[in-house]
Amino acid sequence: MQHGIEPFDASRIAEALRGRLALPASLDPEFDSALQHVLGNPGSLVRPRLAFQMATAYGLDSGRAQDLAIALEYFHTASLLLDDLPCMDNALERRGAPCTHLLYGEDGAILVALALINRAYALTWRTVAACPPPAQQRALDYVERRLGIEGLLNGQSLDLHFASVQQTREATERVAMGKTVSLIRLTLALPAMLGNASPHEIRHIERIAIFWGLGYQIADDLKDMLDNPGQSGKTPARDMLLGRPNLAAVIGIPAAAHRLTRLIDLGDRVLQRLLALRPAVAFLEKLRSDLQLELARILRNSCELAERSRA
Amino acid sequence: MQHGIEPFDASRIAEALRGRLALPASLDPEFDSALQHVLGNPGSLVRPRLAFQMATAYGLDSGRAQDLAIALEYFHTASLLLDDLPCMDNALERRGAPCTHLLYGEDGAILVALALINRAYALTWRTVAACPPPAQQRALDYVERRLGIEGLLNGQSLDLHFASVQQTREATERVAMGKTVSLIRLTLALPAMLGNASPHEIRHIERIAIFWGLGYQIADDLKDMLDNPGQSGKTPARDMLLGRPNLAAVIGIPAAAHRLTRLIDLGDRVLQRLLALRPAVAFLEKLRSDLQLELARILRNSCELAERSRA
Repeated sequence: MQHGIEPFDASRIAEALRGRLALPASLDPEFDSALQHVLGNPGSLVRPRLAFQMATAYGLDSGRAQDLAIALEYFHTASLLLDDLPCMDNALERRGAPCTHLLYGEDGAILVALALINRAYALTWRTVAACPPPAQQRALDYVERRLGIEGLLNGQSLDLHFASVQQTREATERVAMGKTVSLIRLTLALPAMLGNASPHEIRHIERIAIFWGLGYQIADDLKDMLDNPGQSGKTPARDMLLGRPNLAAVIGIPAAAHRLTRLIDLGDRVLQRLLALRPAVAFLEKLRSDLQLELARILRNSCELAERSRA
Repeated sequence: MQHGIEPFDASRIAEALRGRLALPASLDPEFDSALQHVLGNPGSLVRPRLAFQMATAYGLDSGRAQDLAIALEYFHTASLLLDDLPCMDNALERRGAPCTHLLYGEDGAILVALALINRAYALTWRTVAACPPPAQQRALDYVERRLGIEGLLNGQSLDLHFASVQQTREATERVAMGKTVSLIRLTLALPAMLGNASPHEIRHIERIAIFWGLGYQIADDLKDMLDNPGQSGKTPARDMLLGRPNLAAVIGIPAAAHRLTRLIDLGDRVLQRLLALRPAVAFLEKLRSDLQLELARILRNSCELAERSRA
């Protein structure tokens, strides 16, 4: 954390999540309740924390860094609301509570998602408009590509139709590149772009985001295969049931764990180069070690599971 | 049409609708088909034609005027895709073809809507970024308000929950202000804002958009009550069935026709003042006379219906 920048901790982020979308008195009461439910049930908040840290490391002031962080969390939350719908993953629980569409109808969940998306674009624009003009168009193009038909949306569509393609590591990672990695790339690279980082530096950040993004997806896939129901806070063991891509299902648990190790290694090399250019992003080492710890936990669970099945 | 500006006629708009959203080769084939279906089935295109005419009347060049016009049509089409879903209006037909969710699944319709919204924001940003800085933030705030929880989304939510409120003219028009008028306000007022029109002139445009927007909604309501199935190109006579607001159902057909006449009169007064300030918007008189003709056609149908029921 830089000097003079207040930490943007979980309680402040949760407060900002509610505060950045003021609910007018004229709102339809049903819509108001649905929005309050979603804004009042934040998730892990890892994305906004990271986006804020990246933004301040690249010289954005605290207000703009918060706007950007909240915008990215709104995009993320909107994608989860839609993902959970019966026509997509048909999930029952999210963030330890019943899914929004179960409480407020599918229409309610869709309208909340659109409200978050609309506000997220507005906050993104506000952040971008305050940046040096050369960075503006580049940043906006990047937002469009990551969120649109080249990025998140294509990943979601590939995910939904995965059962009908040949299930290889490449096909699985193509889905993850769209569906998971797009938002992680935005979270890490967009703040740097807005801080006028060099193309060289942004390339490093992008590669780290891809290695770790794919890595976190594999960790999720492994957990989906191994975890006890309830531990991950969402509906458990659904990938197989839904025919969704899961690298551990496609290449096996040991090979998936090996691939995750390899991605951590690849990330380490680029991280060292990035840290030499920009020591202020040393907080990224925590993200890297969290991923390593997650892998260790998963492998431990996997061993226990194997022992129990032998017993 | 101004000198030196090529007309943006239906075939050029239809071409621009496809051209402004380039589909990458890496696209999921299902997603690609769904996008092609939607982009290849344009509606009446009244909104993009008007937005283009307004933009060129306020000095935007042809390229930016087209970007803005297409952006607004993408927002509009996205709202129809979502509106038609089973959880909202559960429609079967749109623009003379089966609804997108019937052909590509609800997931497909939602992803196409999001793709259009993402691209629409990008095109809006591109138009706004080329405008004088004082106009930029004002325009973007306006976009956010009209599309977000103060505008379109709240209208949609009120519409869906209309059956549970007291059904008065005011309640009906509150829904229309959000659901119908928001996009008409954007279509007419945003181009003028980007052309740096005075607040006074924008106020006139806003009032015209509200009078005519409410007027077109009443015309739709009357048609829903009176039309033969098939004539309006969408699933007929659904408002009553769904418990949706319909002014003709709430206050009766004669009172609704009277209200529409009154709104045309109110619009006329403001239009005269606007034309005195900005003669280049004389094309708006056509929109006004189309509304009048629509009313006449509806009243004729209504008389025929009454005669048939007496016979």
